[in-house]
Amino acid sequence: MSPGWDRDGDGEVRDMSQAERVAELFFREQRRFIDAFASRDGGGEFRVAPWERAHLGGGRAGILEDGDVFERAGVNVSLVHGTQVPESIVETRPHTRGRPFTATGISLVLHPRNPYAPSVHANFRYFGVGDDEWWFGGGCDLTPMYGFDEDAVHFHRTLKAWCDRHDPSWYPRWKATCDEYFSLPHRNEMRGVGGVFFDHLTGDGATAFDRHLRAVTDGLATILPAYLPILDRRHAMPYGERERTWQLVRRGRYVEFNLACDRGTRFGLQTGANIEAVLMSLPPLARWGFDVRPEPGTPESEVARFLQPRDWARAG
Amino acid sequence: MSPGWDRDGDGEVRDMSQAERVAELFFREQRRFIDAFASRDGGGEFRVAPWERAHLGGGRAGILEDGDVFERAGVNVSLVHGTQVPESIVETRPHTRGRPFTATGISLVLHPRNPYAPSVHANFRYFGVGDDEWWFGGGCDLTPMYGFDEDAVHFHRTLKAWCDRHDPSWYPRWKATCDEYFSLPHRNEMRGVGGVFFDHLTGDGATAFDRHLRAVTDGLATILPAYLPILDRRHAMPYGERERTWQLVRRGRYVEFNLACDRGTRFGLQTGANIEAVLMSLPPLARWGFDVRPEPGTPESEVARFLQPRDWARAG
Repeated sequence: MSPGWDRDGDGEVRDMSQAERVAELFFREQRRFIDAFASRDGGGEFRVAPWERAHLGGGRAGILEDGDVFERAGVNVSLVHGTQVPESIVETRPHTRGRPFTATGISLVLHPRNPYAPSVHANFRYFGVGDDEWWFGGGCDLTPMYGFDEDAVHFHRTLKAWCDRHDPSWYPRWKATCDEYFSLPHRNEMRGVGGVFFDHLTGDGATAFDRHLRAVTDGLATILPAYLPILDRRHAMPYGERERTWQLVRRGRYVEFNLACDRGTRFGLQTGANIEAVLMSLPPLARWGFDVRPEPGTPESEVARFLQPRDWARAG
Repeated sequence: MSPGWDRDGDGEVRDMSQAERVAELFFREQRRFIDAFASRDGGGEFRVAPWERAHLGGGRAGILEDGDVFERAGVNVSLVHGTQVPESIVETRPHTRGRPFTATGISLVLHPRNPYAPSVHANFRYFGVGDDEWWFGGGCDLTPMYGFDEDAVHFHRTLKAWCDRHDPSWYPRWKATCDEYFSLPHRNEMRGVGGVFFDHLTGDGATAFDRHLRAVTDGLATILPAYLPILDRRHAMPYGERERTWQLVRRGRYVEFNLACDRGTRFGLQTGANIEAVLMSLPPLARWGFDVRPEPGTPESEVARFLQPRDWARAG
């Protein structure tokens, strides 16, 4: 049995739907992430912006700009619904056409100021169709501007440990999906060192839902231990104009992926839910140069070997 | 009869195909633009990079970075061919499927350093299918970061005068097409103040080709008089950190259009002709802030009225 939720604050506790339970988790986790990142930053403050769209739903965007550690940190949660499953879902799941849906998601992205500190992105989402079909999706990936083997190894091992606590078949599959999805085909390179990504985690009945909700809850609890030790190692490393310029070039690639390749961003822009929240993942500043090719042997040229699929969990 | 072209430099003059005549014009115009922009800049120099892809063709990219007047100026020409019309063309012209094609294009984009000086983009292209079908396409549009009525009026009147010299029905139609195409639907705003854009200018036989080639030649000759007087008025205006920041925010919108909305860019990335040339249109540096809303009454908030369709040629 699902726990009750005093939705209106009137003391009356009703049973929550699956989507409501997931959204409650996401909103709670959002507060926890915001507190953790604000405390880690020290200087900047989060601006929290609730939003609502008639006949669609709403959400809560949390954003820190121009902080000491983070040049941009964002954590968004949304809960939307509709009478018709959106076209982008119908394309891959035609039987859902014309059915009502509820969707909720949490996404976070961190763009640290220090070029040696990687950007990180995570997203978890739940999609329900009618009363009888539902699935989870999500993932987490790391985008270094400078390559450090130990960072990639730590990140992947932490994610693998999370997956293995729930189903040992997940990590290899989700890692491969992430390598493939978070890539720039036109440059034949990945956005970063990948991570894990899964699209349609489902099962039969309330037991499967409860089990997967536990895995997602555990996944959300894995983001900080996967990322913060890396940030702690890098955020105070000395750097100069050269490293800053390279960081902005690599962020240009991040923008290329998000705007030209990412189906999620395109879907968000097309449905027009909340443009600012959809584009929150973009870095604060990015640069494009013509045919930028780092000199062989430099730390900048070394990054290339981090942008191809590699079994980081076994490496080192 | 078409003039001859000593293609191999062996003294033997052969008749040129239509595509070759257009490409010759484009390569010649590229040199003229490069000279004009280099001379206008004074400080920076153009890097000219020829490129070639087996079984596809090649081109010549010309780029000036970090100049005195232009933070980025690019002029590209390409001449490509293939045994099968690309899918993106077949979508709108199914009867061309499976037929050989030749395509040539010139595109230029200028991102001046001074925030008061607008960016400008122009593109002309020729597409030939087999021996019997061909069309021209192209256009030119202006993207101010700060709005000046006289700039938009001058730009549109100069383009209108060019169109009117050839066909008085062109400007109203091409202006409307441009307003619609160069827009960010997710923000309900145009990329700038528009200009003209046409997609399928064709006709019967060599007479129509010659006539349209004259119009395109005249169009190429119109770009400098349409833009340089505006640049001359703006490029030395004093500005500070505030104007620079706003310029970078507006350039972020430019990136959004090019990567998320522009079919040309997407086609270029998908076919993988020359990524650096395709992405040359991106600004050198761009910025994204969360929910940036200029204070009402400021010059920054005034720009909004320039980003909606307006009959600039009649204005003022």
